[in-house]
Amino acid sequence: MLTMQDALARLSEYWAGQGCLSVQPMNTEVGAGTWNAATFLRSLGPEPWRVAYVEPSVRPDDSRYGDNPNRLQTHTQFQVVLKPEPGNAQQLYLDSLAALGIDVVAHDVRFVEDNWTSPALGMWGLGWEVWLDGLEITQFTYFQQAGGINIEQSAVEITYGVERIIMALQGVTTFKDIEYAPGVRYGEMIGQAEYEMSRYYLDDADIETNRSLFELYTAEAGRMLDVGLPVPAHGYLLKSSHAFNVLDARGAVATADRAAAFGRMRRLSRRIADLWISRREELGYPLGIAPAVTAAVPVATEQTETSAARRFVLEVGCEELPPAEAPAAAAALGREVETRLDATRLAHGATRVYATPRRLVVVVDDVAAREEDFTRSMKGPKLAAAYDKNGEPTGAAKGFARSQGREVAELDRMDLDGVTYVAVTRQEQGRSALDVLAEVTGRAVGTLRSAKNMRWNDPALAFSRPIRWLFALWGPDVVPMTASGLASDRQTRLLRTSEQPVVSVATAEQYLDVVAAAGIVVDPAERRRLIGEQCAELAAAVGGTVDLAAESRLLDQITYLVEQPTPLLGAFSERYLELPEAVLTTVMRKHQRYLPVRDASGGLLPSFVAVANGPIDVDLVRAGNEAVLRARYEDAAFFYRADRGMPLPALRDRLENLTFTEELGSMADRASRVGALGMRLAGLVTMTDDERKTLERAVGLVKFDQGSQLVTELTSLAGIMAEEYARHGGESEEVAVAIAEAEMPRASGDALPASLPGALLSVADRLDLIVGLAATAGLPTGSSDPFAVRRAVLGALAVLRSQSALAALDLRAVLALAAEQQPVPVALEKLDEVLEFISQRYEQSLTEAGTPTHLARAVAVRAGRPWLADLTLKQLAAAVTDEDFQSLATAIGRCSRIVPAGHPAGYQPGDLVEPVELDLHQAVTQVRSELDPEADLDTFRRVAGRLVVPVNAFFDEVFVMADAPQLRAARLGLLASVRDLGEGVLDWSQLRG
Amino acid sequence: MLTMQDALARLSEYWAGQGCLSVQPMNTEVGAGTWNAATFLRSLGPEPWRVAYVEPSVRPDDSRYGDNPNRLQTHTQFQVVLKPEPGNAQQLYLDSLAALGIDVVAHDVRFVEDNWTSPALGMWGLGWEVWLDGLEITQFTYFQQAGGINIEQSAVEITYGVERIIMALQGVTTFKDIEYAPGVRYGEMIGQAEYEMSRYYLDDADIETNRSLFELYTAEAGRMLDVGLPVPAHGYLLKSSHAFNVLDARGAVATADRAAAFGRMRRLSRRIADLWISRREELGYPLGIAPAVTAAVPVATEQTETSAARRFVLEVGCEELPPAEAPAAAAALGREVETRLDATRLAHGATRVYATPRRLVVVVDDVAAREEDFTRSMKGPKLAAAYDKNGEPTGAAKGFARSQGREVAELDRMDLDGVTYVAVTRQEQGRSALDVLAEVTGRAVGTLRSAKNMRWNDPALAFSRPIRWLFALWGPDVVPMTASGLASDRQTRLLRTSEQPVVSVATAEQYLDVVAAAGIVVDPAERRRLIGEQCAELAAAVGGTVDLAAESRLLDQITYLVEQPTPLLGAFSERYLELPEAVLTTVMRKHQRYLPVRDASGGLLPSFVAVANGPIDVDLVRAGNEAVLRARYEDAAFFYRADRGMPLPALRDRLENLTFTEELGSMADRASRVGALGMRLAGLVTMTDDERKTLERAVGLVKFDQGSQLVTELTSLAGIMAEEYARHGGESEEVAVAIAEAEMPRASGDALPASLPGALLSVADRLDLIVGLAATAGLPTGSSDPFAVRRAVLGALAVLRSQSALAALDLRAVLALAAEQQPVPVALEKLDEVLEFISQRYEQSLTEAGTPTHLARAVAVRAGRPWLADLTLKQLAAAVTDEDFQSLATAIGRCSRIVPAGHPAGYQPGDLVEPVELDLHQAVTQVRSELDPEADLDTFRRVAGRLVVPVNAFFDEVFVMADAPQLRAARLGLLASVRDLGEGVLDWSQLRG
Repeated sequence: MLTMQDALARLSEYWAGQGCLSVQPMNTEVGAGTWNAATFLRSLGPEPWRVAYVEPSVRPDDSRYGDNPNRLQTHTQFQVVLKPEPGNAQQLYLDSLAALGIDVVAHDVRFVEDNWTSPALGMWGLGWEVWLDGLEITQFTYFQQAGGINIEQSAVEITYGVERIIMALQGVTTFKDIEYAPGVRYGEMIGQAEYEMSRYYLDDADIETNRSLFELYTAEAGRMLDVGLPVPAHGYLLKSSHAFNVLDARGAVATADRAAAFGRMRRLSRRIADLWISRREELGYPLGIAPAVTAAVPVATEQTETSAARRFVLEVGCEELPPAEAPAAAAALGREVETRLDATRLAHGATRVYATPRRLVVVVDDVAAREEDFTRSMKGPKLAAAYDKNGEPTGAAKGFARSQGREVAELDRMDLDGVTYVAVTRQEQGRSALDVLAEVTGRAVGTLRSAKNMRWNDPALAFSRPIRWLFALWGPDVVPMTASGLASDRQTRLLRTSEQPVVSVATAEQYLDVVAAAGIVVDPAERRRLIGEQCAELAAAVGGTVDLAAESRLLDQITYLVEQPTPLLGAFSERYLELPEAVLTTVMRKHQRYLPVRDASGGLLPSFVAVANGPIDVDLVRAGNEAVLRARYEDAAFFYRADRGMPLPALRDRLENLTFTEELGSMADRASRVGALGMRLAGLVTMTDDERKTLERAVGLVKFDQGSQLVTELTSLAGIMAEEYARHGGESEEVAVAIAEAEMPRASGDALPASLPGALLSVADRLDLIVGLAATAGLPTGSSDPFAVRRAVLGALAVLRSQSALAALDLRAVLALAAEQQPVPVALEKLDEVLEFISQRYEQSLTEAGTPTHLARAVAVRAGRPWLADLTLKQLAAAVTDEDFQSLATAIGRCSRIVPAGHPAGYQPGDLVEPVELDLHQAVTQVRSELDPEADLDTFRRVAGRLVVPVNAFFDEVFVMADAPQLRAARLGLLASVRDLGEGVLDWSQLRG
Repeated sequence: MLTMQDALARLSEYWAGQGCLSVQPMNTEVGAGTWNAATFLRSLGPEPWRVAYVEPSVRPDDSRYGDNPNRLQTHTQFQVVLKPEPGNAQQLYLDSLAALGIDVVAHDVRFVEDNWTSPALGMWGLGWEVWLDGLEITQFTYFQQAGGINIEQSAVEITYGVERIIMALQGVTTFKDIEYAPGVRYGEMIGQAEYEMSRYYLDDADIETNRSLFELYTAEAGRMLDVGLPVPAHGYLLKSSHAFNVLDARGAVATADRAAAFGRMRRLSRRIADLWISRREELGYPLGIAPAVTAAVPVATEQTETSAARRFVLEVGCEELPPAEAPAAAAALGREVETRLDATRLAHGATRVYATPRRLVVVVDDVAAREEDFTRSMKGPKLAAAYDKNGEPTGAAKGFARSQGREVAELDRMDLDGVTYVAVTRQEQGRSALDVLAEVTGRAVGTLRSAKNMRWNDPALAFSRPIRWLFALWGPDVVPMTASGLASDRQTRLLRTSEQPVVSVATAEQYLDVVAAAGIVVDPAERRRLIGEQCAELAAAVGGTVDLAAESRLLDQITYLVEQPTPLLGAFSERYLELPEAVLTTVMRKHQRYLPVRDASGGLLPSFVAVANGPIDVDLVRAGNEAVLRARYEDAAFFYRADRGMPLPALRDRLENLTFTEELGSMADRASRVGALGMRLAGLVTMTDDERKTLERAVGLVKFDQGSQLVTELTSLAGIMAEEYARHGGESEEVAVAIAEAEMPRASGDALPASLPGALLSVADRLDLIVGLAATAGLPTGSSDPFAVRRAVLGALAVLRSQSALAALDLRAVLALAAEQQPVPVALEKLDEVLEFISQRYEQSLTEAGTPTHLARAVAVRAGRPWLADLTLKQLAAAVTDEDFQSLATAIGRCSRIVPAGHPAGYQPGDLVEPVELDLHQAVTQVRSELDPEADLDTFRRVAGRLVVPVNAFFDEVFVMADAPQLRAARLGLLASVRDLGEGVLDWSQLRG
């Protein structure tokens, strides 16, 4: 049995053998090994650095009194930093697992996209979590910035989660059972500290004390920066961060305070980083400067003598690409190659692209051996100007000949549009395929970019993940291309765990066979099909199915997580089926990328399909994946039980301890406001008595599940758990649903509340958030929207547009109601701003859904009543081709345009003189009397349509701008009245052209 | 080359192999590994615990900007705790050195007494520093208390000073050159942090911030204790301690604050320890309970058939005893054995005792094989009462016989003082030598105690250091004794590094030969002689000598630091001879126990003699010792240069930054007061102009050397360096000496100032301290005397008694002057208290010097003028046997006794009536007119002697208590006048009996 202390010693020894310094943990509390100066500071600047250390990482938020089998307030990280990154860090890492006795061939070890960012440290990087049979055991990150400063040398960070690894290796299900040393269990050793520190962080830490500490620490850090001492400043930054984390765990950090605190820490870390870099420079870089990567030399190659066209294969080998990036990158690479190839004279056949997590492949069939030879002519002066009457060449001809490097006597002639010019003609020879392909593909590889790019040890390249090899063959020949430090060759790489992980390929034509023979399915469509097929087979074995259509997004992801898919069927204890389905599937999909297995009626079976990579030991990997799922379900079940053991009001009471924002109070305050607003909205709509009763009950419970442990853990289940718990708590079905619906929609495109009480609460929730934040933090600008106000606006609009019962709600009035509830005063102008903001979002949502911009703009004036606006839009869409409507729009448009902006609609009918204007007056009067200002467009058309004739007649016969001021004013007032009749229905000006 | 990181890994591996948990350092700054919960908390309670860890130990005070080759603000400890102590921890430790590749046979590894205490942790223990060739590399401690609570299980702590060990092993002379990992030097790695953290601790840490932190931390620790959480409370205690250390390094802790802060931390640690113990009990001792040591069973032995007397040898084997304890313990053991043996009937010869660091030996020659047999008679009733007239036994006789278990017929007779009694006589057999010796020595060993005792894994024993074996032979036979867990046998132990460290001894007579053959010199006198002889030889080799007489105390120490002395001659660079001799010899003697080597004229040679233990590799050990001395001298030279580079006033200015006490200001304030008071004292005595000029200059410099780095480092050199630096700074010889003498005497019995200016400053220094502290902290009571006020009083008295020029100083007046200088008001009653306190110390010093108590008390009334008091005592000692003086004393005594206390001395001569009382009146009047109140005793005798006759006549003829009140009052007033003439000269009441 490998004990935990042995494992730590072995890792230390292994990495020391790789040239890492073995150092000690930071001697102040840190949340992760990254904060240690040996990582944060040392990752900056040009000095090389290799280090490995244990870091007991303190996360107050993870306090569980030692009751949770998998979560500890202090967990043990083993941290490795390699700077510059050595190019083979993944392999070194796999070897370290082998040093721990892990059979990496039998196990399913995978690098799953996981980017990392630390706002407080101004630090981020791209990389992966490493999965061992579905268990996240390591974080692997290529740093890109620290302290907001670009990493000068590449640096890779490998962070092992030691307890998790040991639990897996020892086959125990709680940290308590880990054998730390022979005969000593981890629980016996650290149990008391876990309990007591949990008590401290969750219950007993003095909030004022920790606030003071945070202030003192940050101030002292600042002072040390002022005197040029980054090392003590860094120490105080760490202490600040810990004090902040303590406050956070105590629920004493308001969202706004959080932003301020992070800002403060980020500014400190930035200054620390700057100062560290300049101090190291002053010290002359005591550890030296890491050497630069040298540019690669293309392989020496000579094209095989042949005239036959051959296949060209380009394989760009990468470290595991994110699933969302790989297909896009492959497609882009294929396009680049094809487009550039088309711009040459090299004949070629069809282009195909393939992608796996580790390779982008472009296959071009039938690429000719050479470009065709061709004749190139350069036009000179007209013949008439090239020779004088004596037939002697003119200066122009001589100049032209000279510029082309020819004698005048060698000039040709060419005819162009019937005019003859002197010319120079050259026979040019086509380049060889290798030359053309080398140039084309070299450039194409150079263009590789993804949505989020990183840098590694090759400073000239940037991509989603490091590019590690280039394979380029035309027929039998290596295409001698380079990209910065990389040169192409004929070697491809199979799975890292293959017996022969690197193989030479004889010809391009054999490439696909070679990789296929090794089990790698390069074609993603084929992989997806295979996965689906095998999933279905596996599910069938337990009498179930996998709903491939419903799991489409997950399947897409999985397809790009493996090169050689090995689906396997796992099981979990039936007793977990007592958990709500959403809990089970959220964990499977989101955390584990497992496919749920269902029975004929769509119910969950206690099975799942995990898709491993490569020819792993299925039983071993199944057992591992099952253990991971069990642990996660055990966690969830623990929370679920604990939550259900509490009365709903007690869960609701916990909201008192969650701060929404400093100014807007606790989550309990917010839930109360949402409920109260919901009731006031109910007064504005028509609803049944039952609906009203449901709402009355629901307002007392809304958001209560945010006080539950399960929702604290799996926040995406907010609302879903409310429904579960409410039902369990004896609430009616309708109440349970209403509370759940209050949280809908969760995201754009998500399901909307179906019930009226749910819809009212949903709207109330969102409007409360929008108004409160507008009044305090302000409306979001640019990309910063920490409180997701935009999403709230879109959600409120979606709900208001979804139920006709809500058509009665006028946002202007409703926002005023929301404003009244706020604990801070809300200025009227602020509400105007909010309405304008909502309008813009409404208009934007229409255009994003395909509505032409001018129509979206035309109806956005009605965004305050979204249901009506939608109806208006629908009617408008039908109306725009209707001649009568066009006439009406033209008539109203004419009126609008001629009346100066701001001219009032009033006039004395007695001032009017012409019959046609009196007709118009009459028509206006009648229309106005018949028209509800909230009329839909069709009604408006019907009623206002009778204005067209008198308006047109008016414009035909009356000169508006009469000399007599009184008359002129009356006429303008009359037209303004027409204009105003149209106002609020549409923005008619958008309908002009 | 063993790198530092390899060494740490090897130690971890070695101790893990001994069952230690490998854990991480504390994740908050600690001054030493002891503070880590893995030591402090785990050493408490009954649970077993073995742990080993690296602890980067932060000591702000040791900050040197990375400039000092040997001192770092963060140094690396490797900490081991074994609980219960395994009985062979020293051997395990030596094996750990071997695991580091250290040849413990060739090197001189020694355990040198060093007890350890941490006031803040309420923790102390006894043990050693371990020396490797004179270099202190490890602290080895048997904990006795933690948090003020007795250690329940024994626990041993081993703390390696890693950098020192590595520097020695790698043969480098500065931490910077340590090879931390292949190709990486320690200085390159940590240099910047050393510099910056030094800057923080010494210069830039914000004092108010750290004060606030200290307050916040201690308060939070207290709160956590209130809610029953010892673990977070402990964490905050550590943080408090670090904040305190930061303040201390910044010179921001006044002595009084220090005491308060330590008190606070001690109270916290006590509460933490209490709470931890009860929490562990509540938790049911998760790690179990260590088994108790079982009582030993004596060896089965049968005494050899012989009637010959044989030698008896008892050897009590110990871990290294403190040099001061070993001889006392051996003597006590010998006395116990002899006294107890004398109380038996076992004939025996002479008793000898021997002692080495590891063994106490008692040798008793010619111990008989058996006690002599003997007859024991029990006396019964008188014969007359035993038989009636019929010769029948009476009831008394029967009862006696029954009580003795005899028949009446068996009763004997015995005569006693001519009376005959009935009696019972028994023949009793003497016990065997083994039985007697087993009982005697078992009890004798049980009585072993030293001045400071410890407990180890045997809860029934307590001694200076653990007793590990008992060797007890009588002739060929093991004396079968036990002492708790130990049983005697015939095995003794040689040097730990011997090829055969444990040997059996055939007979007691062979014991001395066996150990002698192994090189061990058990006789301390012989060891001392050998050491002296070899020292002389070695010194002679370089033309020098060792002044054995002058180094007598050091030789005594060395004698008890080795069992097999191996003196060796070392050398140091001549350039260090430029350092003041006191610096060189202080380092040699106090720090290294080296003997200085001098030339014919007494000057130091660049050589020393170190005395190693056992048959070490002399060249290797010499090189090691030389390196240690070089490092220490290099340090001293560094400071010396730095100090001499500064003008004296600049050094003096540094006193501003040293706080004396919060209320009494800085050391600079104190130095100013001392100077000013010195000048005022000068006004009270007769001195030459030159002396006055010297004093005037000296008052501006007094104490300036306490601002120097060397004195900060080697505090015992205060004053000595002042003289050096003053001379170097161009001051006159007299001024230099006066400043040096201001610090004299350093301890009781130390040299006193020779010059008058020096003496005045010395007195001023001490009186300032006494008065200032009396007025603020109060005079010392009990054993607590943190400011060494008692020593100051004794010092002042010694100086005042040493020079007749100071006879003019009256302490009552002088204390008032000192009081005027204080920055706080000093009440008059306070000065009375001080004078009384001084009086008591004066009297005590006389009795301690052998003066009979009554004489000491008699002259103590003059302690305010110590010179005069001494003179008085001298005269009194001569006078007491003189009849005239006795008559005078009797006369004064008679007067004193008859006059009620408090009765005033006044009377109207006219009220007197009898001639004898008028005679007395005349005599009194005349004596009073001739007598100076400060007269010495001889003068007093001469003048007051004439009172004897009239006093006696008065008492013969006059009845004092006359009925007439007026007359009675006059007579009492007359006698009171006689009494008062004697008052202030002596306490006559002490001379009565």
